[in-house]
Formats: sequence, C-alpha cells, structure tokens
Amino acid sequence: MVEHTAREAGAGMAADIAEQAAGYERLLTEGLAPIAAVARQVAELSPRFVLFTARGTSDHAALFAAYLTEIRLGIPAGLASPSSITVYGARPDLRDALVVGVSQSGGSPDLTEVVRVARESGAHTLAVTNNPGSPLADAAQLHLDVLAGKERAVAATKTYTAELLALLLFVEGMRTGSGQLDAADRAELDRLPELARTLIEDPTPTQLAARYRFADRLVTTGRGYAYPTARETALKLMETSYLSALAFSGADLLHGPLAMTDPDVPVLAMVGDGPGGRSMSEVLGRLAERRADVLVVGNGEAAGLPAHAVRIGTPAVDERFSPLLDIVPMQRLALALALARGEDPDAPRGLKKVTETL
Amino acid sequence: MVEHTAREAGAGMAADIAEQAAGYERLLTEGLAPIAAVARQVAELSPRFVLFTARGTSDHAALFAAYLTEIRLGIPAGLASPSSITVYGARPDLRDALVVGVSQSGGSPDLTEVVRVARESGAHTLAVTNNPGSPLADAAQLHLDVLAGKERAVAATKTYTAELLALLLFVEGMRTGSGQLDAADRAELDRLPELARTLIEDPTPTQLAARYRFADRLVTTGRGYAYPTARETALKLMETSYLSALAFSGADLLHGPLAMTDPDVPVLAMVGDGPGGRSMSEVLGRLAERRADVLVVGNGEAAGLPAHAVRIGTPAVDERFSPLLDIVPMQRLALALALARGEDPDAPRGLKKVTETL
Repeated sequence: MVEHTAREAGAGMAADIAEQAAGYERLLTEGLAPIAAVARQVAELSPRFVLFTARGTSDHAALFAAYLTEIRLGIPAGLASPSSITVYGARPDLRDALVVGVSQSGGSPDLTEVVRVARESGAHTLAVTNNPGSPLADAAQLHLDVLAGKERAVAATKTYTAELLALLLFVEGMRTGSGQLDAADRAELDRLPELARTLIEDPTPTQLAARYRFADRLVTTGRGYAYPTARETALKLMETSYLSALAFSGADLLHGPLAMTDPDVPVLAMVGDGPGGRSMSEVLGRLAERRADVLVVGNGEAAGLPAHAVRIGTPAVDERFSPLLDIVPMQRLALALALARGEDPDAPRGLKKVTETL
Repeated sequence: MVEHTAREAGAGMAADIAEQAAGYERLLTEGLAPIAAVARQVAELSPRFVLFTARGTSDHAALFAAYLTEIRLGIPAGLASPSSITVYGARPDLRDALVVGVSQSGGSPDLTEVVRVARESGAHTLAVTNNPGSPLADAAQLHLDVLAGKERAVAATKTYTAELLALLLFVEGMRTGSGQLDAADRAELDRLPELARTLIEDPTPTQLAARYRFADRLVTTGRGYAYPTARETALKLMETSYLSALAFSGADLLHGPLAMTDPDVPVLAMVGDGPGGRSMSEVLGRLAERRADVLVVGNGEAAGLPAHAVRIGTPAVDERFSPLLDIVPMQRLALALALARGEDPDAPRGLKKVTETL
C-alpha cells in the first residue's frame, strides 16, 4: 500500500521556519551543557588558529563563527576551501589548529575528507551537525549537535539558525574559558525564543513579497556580523525563487558591483545598530545617489537611508545576536516569494538535500 | 588652456588588456630577482599560516595565492575579512603568521589598517601592489611590486594578471626555499608572454559577445585554481556591462544555486585539464541535464559537456598557470560586451579607481 499525503506547497518550509523559536529554546536548555563541555575542552587546547569548512547554507554559519572567533577570541580564523585537500591533495601542517566542519546532514563526503585529513595533519577537529550519527560527526574528535530536529524542506532554515546559535554558544563558552556564557549574554539570549516568535508572526515579509514578484535579479548587502545574513538571504532567494541574488559585503559593493545597481535592481540591506550596521552608512548613501530600490532589514537607524526606502524592523539586541533574528523575515520573504511565483520551495527543481561533492 | 583628447570608448581597457603579455615579460625578467629575495626571506621566517587581505579584483588574486599556499607549500591559508579588525577592533594573535595585503593602488585605508594592526600583533607583513610608494606598501615590512605600469581603465585587467604572476613567483620561490623557480616551471613560464599574446589576438571572445547582448544575468563557475578566474570574470562583467554575474565554485553550484540555472541563464564554465578541471565533470553533466547554455573556457576535455556547448580554447599549461591565461579571453569578452551595449568600460558609472572603505 502506497500512502498518499495531500501536501500544500511550501508547508514544509513554513513549518521549519516556525520551529526556530522552539529550536532556540532547546539549545538554550538541553543544548547548553554539552556545548559548554566542548567549549571548555577546546579552550584548554588553546588553538592558534581556526579553519572552518562548510558548503552552502552552513558556509554562512561558518562565516558568522569566523567573525566571532576573530573578534571575541582574538584567534585568527578563516574559511578553508575543501578542494585544496580533496581535489589537489594538499596536506597542510595543522598542528595547533582547530578545524571545524559545519554541515546540517553531516553527510558531505568532501567535508568529511577535509576533517579526516586535518586530524591526520595534527589539527584538533570539531564537527557541527544536526546528525550525531553522521560520517562528519564520526570523523571529528568533538561534536556539537545543533538539535534542530528533522528538516522538511530542501532549503535549510531551522538548521541554519541552530548552527548559528550552537556556534555562538561555543565561541562565547570558549571566551569565558569555563564553557559557560557570561551572565549578561545569558540574560539576553534567554529572550531569543520569544523575539524569534514575534518575527515568525510578523506579516510584513509576506506582504512585501509582492514587491519582488517580477524581479529576476537582486542584490543583498551587509557588513561584519550581518554579512552572513546577506549571503544566506541571497542563497535562500536563489534556491526557492530562482532569481539571481548577489550578496556583497558593503565594502566590496563599493568596489565595482555598485555600477550594476540602478532603480531596476532591488537591494536588500542588512543594517543593525552596531559597528557593522553603522559602517553601512556610506553604502546606503551611495545607493541613494544611484536611486536604488532599497529594503532595509534590521534594528539600525540606517543613516543615509533614502526617504522612500522600505523597511523590516527587527528587535534591538547586541549586534552579535542579530543574525539569529534578522534571517527569519528573509526566510519568510523567500517562502512567500516562491509561492507568489507558483513554485514549491519544499522541492526546488534540480536540488538534493545532501550534496555529495568529492 | 584645457587639453581636449578625443578618446574612443573602451580604448583604455583594450590597451591595458593588450599590455599583459609585456607585463608578464617584465615580471619574468626585472621582477624575478626582487621577488626571489622576498620569497627567500619569508621562507626563512617559516610562517605557520598565511592570511590574505584584499578587495575586489585583488581579492581574486589573493584567493589564487591562498590555493597555491595550501597546495604547494602545505601552509594553511585563508582570506581575512578586514572588517573584523577595522570595524570591530579585533586584535588577533598573529605571531608566526604571514599577513599579505594585495591591492593594485595600495591606497585602500582598510587594508593598510589591517596590515598595520597585523604587524603590531606579531605578524610578518607583505604588501603586493602596483605602487611601491603607496600607504599599503609603507605599512608592510616587505613588498612585491607587480610592475604593471599605470592602468588606464577603472576596471582592473593588467594589474590583476600581474598580481597573479607576482604571487605565483613568490609562492614557488618559497617552495624551493632559495626564492628561485625550479627549472621546469621556469621553462614553462617563459612561454607565458607568447601564449598571452595569442589570446590577446584571438577574435573568438569578441565574436561571442553578441551572444550575451541581451542577457541580464549569468553564472560563472570553476573549481580550485580556476575558481578565482570564475570570480574575476563575473566581477569584470558586472563592472563593465552591469549584468548580474554570479560566481560559484563548481561544488557550491550543486548546493542550491543550480536550481537557478535554466536555458535562459548563460553559464561560463572554466574547465582546465588538471584536477580542478576534471572535478567539474559532474557540474557539467548536471548543467547539461538542465539544458543550460554553457560556454566552456580553458584547455580541458570537459567531460560531460553538452554537444551544443560553445567553447573558447586556451593553451595547454600546468593547471597552476591557467589562471594567468584563461582570464584574458574573459576580459576581452567583458570589453566587447560593454561596447556592444553602448557602455564605456573605461569609465563605468558609479565607480572610482581607489575605493576608500574604512
């Protein structure tokens, strides 16, 4: 007997998005102790540098963690290209390094191979996955489980934010040395599930989707902690709505691609109220000069914002925590836009959930 | 008296492109000894890891150098985000690190600040510029002059390839330890100016430009050493022709953005005859399934290439050297496409030659 289930287009992605508040709650209760234990262990190892390796959505979580590592821990960090190792057979000297593989499925053979080689090459290795039984988790000495539960849609949403929070808890735990959060961060993070819930219920992104119904290209931008949000927004829009979404750090946008923006290319700018957000004021000014169509997302004051710019406000939190919130309306925008275009974001054309690149 | 000079649109960019053969010649004669001296010095310092910092076109040269550093030297390498230091005040522990700033003008305040802070934080510092009197060159302990001569157009071409070759000579010089190239590499590189000249004269890219006259978006892809070529091709097309050009590593393309490709989104695939090129065969197969319009650039056999794919052949050289050649037809495609669209690539709208992000 074959079971037939009537399924509404996008129902899976909508459910995944809605579960993010509960996902935060889970990580902030049952996730805390195991993550603290790993953070304490790694703090004792005192790595001299950290290399993250990831692909797709998880690459954006890794990028966020690389910023945190440099800024909060004063440890140089970067994103490693798997192909040096998997395609060219590079065997870098990784003593004193921490190599972190991030992947929701933990099933990418190339990341597993990078972690395996890194371990042989002297690195401390950590896997961050949504699947503790996965090959990537097995290959690494240490593991963080992001506890997001099974994701329904192919386009990752709740596993992304779970990776962000797990990596944040890990880095902040390394910072204190004990693996525990400091009290002020703990108090602010305890508000996270409730703030996420507000964003999950806010009708603004769904209403705004109509604005981009006929756009076939788009630019996203942000700086610092908000740059991963810009990148992930672009990827989500490409995966679900098949438009060309280009993500630039605010600084890079000024170096060439700005020429491409004109009133016909919508811009989504992530502007928080912190150093990264404030550093966007020149970018916003230049976009205004070019009469670009700008949607500003975040809690920033957005100096230089053109008078007619549209806006999605998000809760005022420390800029480190904004990526955990600001992506939610962007996921919802991607979902609504896909539906408005008659696409099913749960099953994008040409995509598999686990991509096996070697 | 004001001097008026009649100027043909794109004449500056065309002249810059044409000078690349002579630029290679210059680096391979007068450039060799000073670069070897720096390479020998850095080899003696034995850095444990290398961080590159750059923006725009120079970021792609830095990416190429990061691959070389990992693969050829076995030293972990990555690209550093300037904003950690310049926006958030990160002060990473950079003892035993080599920090390399790459910038044709040497005039970006943010890169200069990164190199200054890196030096204070214990790093060995190297600037790679086309201007030995620049602030970036001053800030670093060591300097490589890429000897490209003044660039006429705003869109960088000859300074890009000069950065690539200078960085290649530097890494290969570190590899031998003496700063000198090994004999086989030397013999192959001596052919470079002549091979570049052939590509500068090949009419194919100019003829192909008509094909993209009405494209407003496009995807470029490549893996390993060819990925910087894909990135730089995308940037050049955006800067001069204002289309949305998305660059993906072949592996990342399979992770989501593939959904975006269809017969209406042209793909430019860099496929050489080496490990990186061969690893593109799955990507080409998937693109063929999606009936994508593919232009293959390079000297690879391109397994899986759809029968109707268009092709620009480039000379057969070691895959490490292909980026020095394969970008030339892409620069010429960008120039011809801009002219076909009635744009002046020498003076793109909204751009300045030196971008001063802080």
